[in-house]
Amino acid sequence: MQGKYRALWLNNESFLEVIDQTKLPFEYETKVLRTTDAVVLAIKDMTVRGAGVIGSVAAFGIYTACMEVKSYSELEEKAGLIRQSRPTAVNLMWAVDKMMDLLKDSRHLVEDSKRFAIELNDDEARESQKIAKYGADIIEDILKTKNKKTINILTHCNAGWLAVIDEGTALAPIYEAQKRGIDVHVWVDETRPRNQGASLTAWELTQSGVKHTIIADNTGGHLMQNDMVDIVITGADRVSANGDVANKIGTYLKALAAHDNGVPFYVAIPASTFDFDIRDGLKEIPIELRSEDEVKYMRGVDSDGLVREVLIAPKDSPAINYGFDVTPARLVTGLITNKGICEADFDKIQQKFKEN
Amino acid sequence: MQGKYRALWLNNESFLEVIDQTKLPFEYETKVLRTTDAVVLAIKDMTVRGAGVIGSVAAFGIYTACMEVKSYSELEEKAGLIRQSRPTAVNLMWAVDKMMDLLKDSRHLVEDSKRFAIELNDDEARESQKIAKYGADIIEDILKTKNKKTINILTHCNAGWLAVIDEGTALAPIYEAQKRGIDVHVWVDETRPRNQGASLTAWELTQSGVKHTIIADNTGGHLMQNDMVDIVITGADRVSANGDVANKIGTYLKALAAHDNGVPFYVAIPASTFDFDIRDGLKEIPIELRSEDEVKYMRGVDSDGLVREVLIAPKDSPAINYGFDVTPARLVTGLITNKGICEADFDKIQQKFKEN
Repeated sequence: MQGKYRALWLNNESFLEVIDQTKLPFEYETKVLRTTDAVVLAIKDMTVRGAGVIGSVAAFGIYTACMEVKSYSELEEKAGLIRQSRPTAVNLMWAVDKMMDLLKDSRHLVEDSKRFAIELNDDEARESQKIAKYGADIIEDILKTKNKKTINILTHCNAGWLAVIDEGTALAPIYEAQKRGIDVHVWVDETRPRNQGASLTAWELTQSGVKHTIIADNTGGHLMQNDMVDIVITGADRVSANGDVANKIGTYLKALAAHDNGVPFYVAIPASTFDFDIRDGLKEIPIELRSEDEVKYMRGVDSDGLVREVLIAPKDSPAINYGFDVTPARLVTGLITNKGICEADFDKIQQKFKEN
Repeated sequence: MQGKYRALWLNNESFLEVIDQTKLPFEYETKVLRTTDAVVLAIKDMTVRGAGVIGSVAAFGIYTACMEVKSYSELEEKAGLIRQSRPTAVNLMWAVDKMMDLLKDSRHLVEDSKRFAIELNDDEARESQKIAKYGADIIEDILKTKNKKTINILTHCNAGWLAVIDEGTALAPIYEAQKRGIDVHVWVDETRPRNQGASLTAWELTQSGVKHTIIADNTGGHLMQNDMVDIVITGADRVSANGDVANKIGTYLKALAAHDNGVPFYVAIPASTFDFDIRDGLKEIPIELRSEDEVKYMRGVDSDGLVREVLIAPKDSPAINYGFDVTPARLVTGLITNKGICEADFDKIQQKFKEN
């Protein structure tokens, strides 16, 4: 299976090819995105998802657009379409802006955009590798201190290579620890309502040969009370200047349980996840309200092998679906970044990421 | 619809009739249990569930058995079958023992057992009414103190009239508050993996005309951070002598969030829920490990209106399914019991429930 450990790549004909994440974990299918329209649709319909991967796809989307246009001004129109495909995605905007800036004076749009997109993705991959290294160092320290055979890591949602190339954020340290010969086991939070844990993370860890067990989101507290979790690592969608962490809904509950049981709670992020304009994450980070259907309907495979959606609640009962919550900095043991470990603290974050 | 607000009743022919809870919320069906075997099967296959309701069904099960036997010794055999239908259910054992004790010298097994079973259920109903009253007083106090239009109550799992006659435990105060004219709204935790919240509680509240909204189990923390929850009320399967609360997995996480945000966290129970033999609930209460299939498969209605089970995770990824967790007494604001409100504290519990 090509691209086994990547969410996207250029195929033999130099077109962008991606794993169709809406089909996981039931079917492994890829899509070749030959046009700007195809790229836009893939972002809109969640064929690709994950902060980093959307940025990567957007960069290659500009390259794809370059194959369709004759001038920079024509390209700007296409770039506008890509920007509108998911207006709230910070990485998408950043990647499109960066690409358009680099291409401003280009005389060879196709060749240059291809090179820039590859470079931009290589940069992302290097950041992921650094997060992997710093995070694995922490896991190694726990192994030594606790003198345990297996290190049990709990994670929420999906922040692996399906979300951020090359090896993700939260899962990158786990892959690296396994490479170092550490016996790791991952508790995979199902992550209702969209089930990114039970579907994407469990699938990804299976592909990568990492031992894991799926749990209902309700279970982590009990596991931590019984010393069955050595460390929690999650990703984040946005981290405010004071270290508050916006991540998939439910992250806050795991941070509380970790704090109550003395379990270290780490958040793995590239430096681009900081939003320095927000000083108080709890008060200021807007929380996306999504469709109630994500709570009331569930997708899975029936006994005939067909993917079906079923209603799991009374049709007339309303549901509400907040996509994210904010974990206050006081509950975060540390941020695992591409520049090293950083305390979730305003001054420490400023020192490390704003000065120089 | 007969028995709309009850989980069980005697039908016109004086046979036990129950709501088939495995079909909810998709179909409303009742079953008439004419034989001991039918009663045993209904308990085993979860046609009936909920601590109190299982006890009630067991009491009427003894009455049903009396219609099949000629002597007390024959009845003892049948009672053994009912006891074995769910060996871990404390209320079931208690109800069978109580009925058998009352019938020891009976010369009219059928008439006497019918009367005793009705009395036992009337006692249960009275306990539920007292819990309703004491709990509603708390809700009324919050209404006055906070001077709010609507009181938002979060609950986990199902502890309503589908679980305990007559009006449940955790939901009883809510029904009573509504009767008193208080504007109540319930946040219904989905309660993965068996979804008792999204299926049973949402259905029950709909039948009873109580405003409610289904939420993923991950959501409660965010709601509490944003002052959208005025009180949490759950039931319990067992409360230790020191006030630790064993309840559906995930209850502990909600208690942590309530504590972190200054939201009162109450547990509603009949006095029979105390297990005085257990002094340290966290260390001593055994936690049931259930089938991983409850995590990996989900039941719902497809677009053709058929109830189907679908696989929602990779087939080869293992899952683990702890049924309960233990919330430490320090996180419990109070116990709402049929004898009034009691602090979750060893001495206070002894005083109120052991002395006299």
